[in-house]
Amino acid sequence: MKFVKELISYEDAKKITFQELDEFIRDKYKEFNLNDCLNKICHEDIVSPVDLPSFNKSAMDGYSVIAEDVFGASDNNPIILEKIEFDEEENSKFESKNTVGDENFELINGFATKVSTGTKIPEGSNAVVMKEYVKEYDDYIEVYLGVHPFENVSKIGEDLKKGDIIIKKGEIITPYHIALLASVGIKKVNCTYLKIGILSTGDELISLENYGKEVNNKNDELKKINMDYISKTGSIINSNSVMLKSLLKNCGFDAKAYDHVEDNPKEIEKCILKILSENDILMTTGGTSVGDRDYTFEEISKLGEILYHGIKIRPGRPVGFSKIELGNQSKFIYILSGYPVAAAVQFELLFNQYFKPLKTLKIPLTRNFASSLGRTDIMRIKLTYDSNSKNTNSKLFAEPLRISGSGVISSLSSADGYVIIDENIEGYEKGDIVTAHLFKK
Amino acid sequence: MKFVKELISYEDAKKITFQELDEFIRDKYKEFNLNDCLNKICHEDIVSPVDLPSFNKSAMDGYSVIAEDVFGASDNNPIILEKIEFDEEENSKFESKNTVGDENFELINGFATKVSTGTKIPEGSNAVVMKEYVKEYDDYIEVYLGVHPFENVSKIGEDLKKGDIIIKKGEIITPYHIALLASVGIKKVNCTYLKIGILSTGDELISLENYGKEVNNKNDELKKINMDYISKTGSIINSNSVMLKSLLKNCGFDAKAYDHVEDNPKEIEKCILKILSENDILMTTGGTSVGDRDYTFEEISKLGEILYHGIKIRPGRPVGFSKIELGNQSKFIYILSGYPVAAAVQFELLFNQYFKPLKTLKIPLTRNFASSLGRTDIMRIKLTYDSNSKNTNSKLFAEPLRISGSGVISSLSSADGYVIIDENIEGYEKGDIVTAHLFKK
Repeated sequence: MKFVKELISYEDAKKITFQELDEFIRDKYKEFNLNDCLNKICHEDIVSPVDLPSFNKSAMDGYSVIAEDVFGASDNNPIILEKIEFDEEENSKFESKNTVGDENFELINGFATKVSTGTKIPEGSNAVVMKEYVKEYDDYIEVYLGVHPFENVSKIGEDLKKGDIIIKKGEIITPYHIALLASVGIKKVNCTYLKIGILSTGDELISLENYGKEVNNKNDELKKINMDYISKTGSIINSNSVMLKSLLKNCGFDAKAYDHVEDNPKEIEKCILKILSENDILMTTGGTSVGDRDYTFEEISKLGEILYHGIKIRPGRPVGFSKIELGNQSKFIYILSGYPVAAAVQFELLFNQYFKPLKTLKIPLTRNFASSLGRTDIMRIKLTYDSNSKNTNSKLFAEPLRISGSGVISSLSSADGYVIIDENIEGYEKGDIVTAHLFKK
Repeated sequence: MKFVKELISYEDAKKITFQELDEFIRDKYKEFNLNDCLNKICHEDIVSPVDLPSFNKSAMDGYSVIAEDVFGASDNNPIILEKIEFDEEENSKFESKNTVGDENFELINGFATKVSTGTKIPEGSNAVVMKEYVKEYDDYIEVYLGVHPFENVSKIGEDLKKGDIIIKKGEIITPYHIALLASVGIKKVNCTYLKIGILSTGDELISLENYGKEVNNKNDELKKINMDYISKTGSIINSNSVMLKSLLKNCGFDAKAYDHVEDNPKEIEKCILKILSENDILMTTGGTSVGDRDYTFEEISKLGEILYHGIKIRPGRPVGFSKIELGNQSKFIYILSGYPVAAAVQFELLFNQYFKPLKTLKIPLTRNFASSLGRTDIMRIKLTYDSNSKNTNSKLFAEPLRISGSGVISSLSSADGYVIIDENIEGYEKGDIVTAHLFKK
């Protein structure tokens, strides 16, 4: 069949797309305040400029000591140390009215200094005796338990050494990265930054805003847009724009969803040019085939290069990728299906997998699953456990979802993830190990 | 030891906290536009008000037919059908200048109607022949491949039947939920809504904003806040506030981080009352012990009930939970540690696990891990694969991270998740099956 022969493999589509993105995103970044970096993609390797902690820190409330002074201390053999104050009025921190540390203070043998959890222990000291094992008097303390060097102490550089990598280019910034970056005084981070526009096309589309309202049609008849109207006219509420906007948000990008446009070549061309002029990437849905009303692909092909159109994958076959030169800038268009499931799969495989690949697990299948040679199949799965698992034999399995149609969005919302079945594989047998990509739910 | 006896078990702390939250959050919700629901917690069971699709829809570009008319069609035996137009000017949709469906049209035997992917097939028809298997003429078509009933058709209710649950109360709203909700015309969702304030306390704290700046201390000396200053004075850049704000954001809540406050009882009390008056929940960090400068706990205990203070867990022991009656409203305070790792663990176990529990996996350990009886240990782990795994024996393992100190934030940023080691377990041996809670990275 001529139609199928024009399609390329998923592996080739991926290679083409990811190579273009490698080049394209090199200079696509923006500096963000640390507060605004959560879940964005870090665009640089960040190394720690300092040791963290930058001083030996008490991990307990108690007394900072020289460990050798209290070796062998016990309930029956308390050891006495003289108390000495660490903090000095004139060296106090200015963010606080209380005092913390005197930078010139040094502890010597026979002395102990009171410390709290998280505070610096004085120079000279090397351990902390927990207050539970200390009896306090006015000028001295009795220590009832010995400590070894650096017991109850967070040592300089224990968390990070100067030069240690905190986060690598391409990693997603988590709350823990943010805590680390703040701790070493990093206030701004270069994050991958792309302006992305979304455009759904199709005569059948109704905007969610208009649903439930009465709207004049072109014959000036007031019509109520309800489900009855929708089922009679074969209309569809546009869900692709809001889905893609959400998927992009979870991928670290704030995209703009433009008003959908009907199957009108002139209108489509106008919208595409407008959105391209305002964005780096455009994602369209609908009009991806070569049907009579599939103008999206047609219009895009007039504007620039089509890097591919159609890949041997199911669901998701009618997807295109295009590079447009506008002014002296390159822009890219992901030409996605109108079917939400196909669009979601195309997005996941050709965009999300580049920027924010899902965690994968190698696990066995619960049952046979047939696939076609020469086509990559996306099998949606649920995670299940062996029912007679109790102990060391407990095992996790991938259960293929039974999906009746390609339009079934609930196959995504109820799935835990998916398996990519290579085009050279005819299917799997029960027990075969597959690589499951897990949704971040 | 008296101090340890006052602590409660993790299981008890969890029970107390979650019971209070069950009651507390019952009426804590707010209606959000669908566009703003992503990653929030759904506060209601939502069932589909309609069938989706609400009409039989073509899954391909081609011709809608009565399947029985083309049984047995093949390359050598093409079957001829008369073409008939489906769309009518006067029934056109008003959001479009083109026409889609005539609500009174019904297909009868011997006829075929051109359809595109995603469009309604007319009443009477029950299948679609792909255009690749059709030769078109002016008034008729030749069909070269038979179809069975509902082939290439997305049937009414295939995705969702009226009354099917789209999302359950307590579930996190994903992009796929959003697509489904939009598709059935749901514009607004009640999401769990809590106003949460964050307050870090401690004389040692420096705000990230002040880092790198020159600031006057109280003796009116201009001091540059750099790492040298920090290490000499034992100061710490406040990372807890921004970490908790990010963790809460990932849990679906927009929290407000207030300026940190020094260890001054009057000041702490004032801040706590202000934040409680503006929020449902307050999370404090620091001052959780009963040390000389640990005023946070002390001040909170004067304001209301302490439901617990200290749990037998490591890391994370010095954590408190308090219920305060303010006006005629209940407010809760999570009294978290000043140590970021302890605070993160406390947040994860006592807040996040309630609202957004992590996915868990039962997998074997790569090595022995010792734990103490009578204390719940939080073992941070990385996922690894058996190196000589290739095929059906491929297995996933949990590798305990070697962590030198409790202050090591990088033990969280580099971990894939954690295992809760029950207080009745002395530790695990290599190969023992554990339940790993996986971070959503």
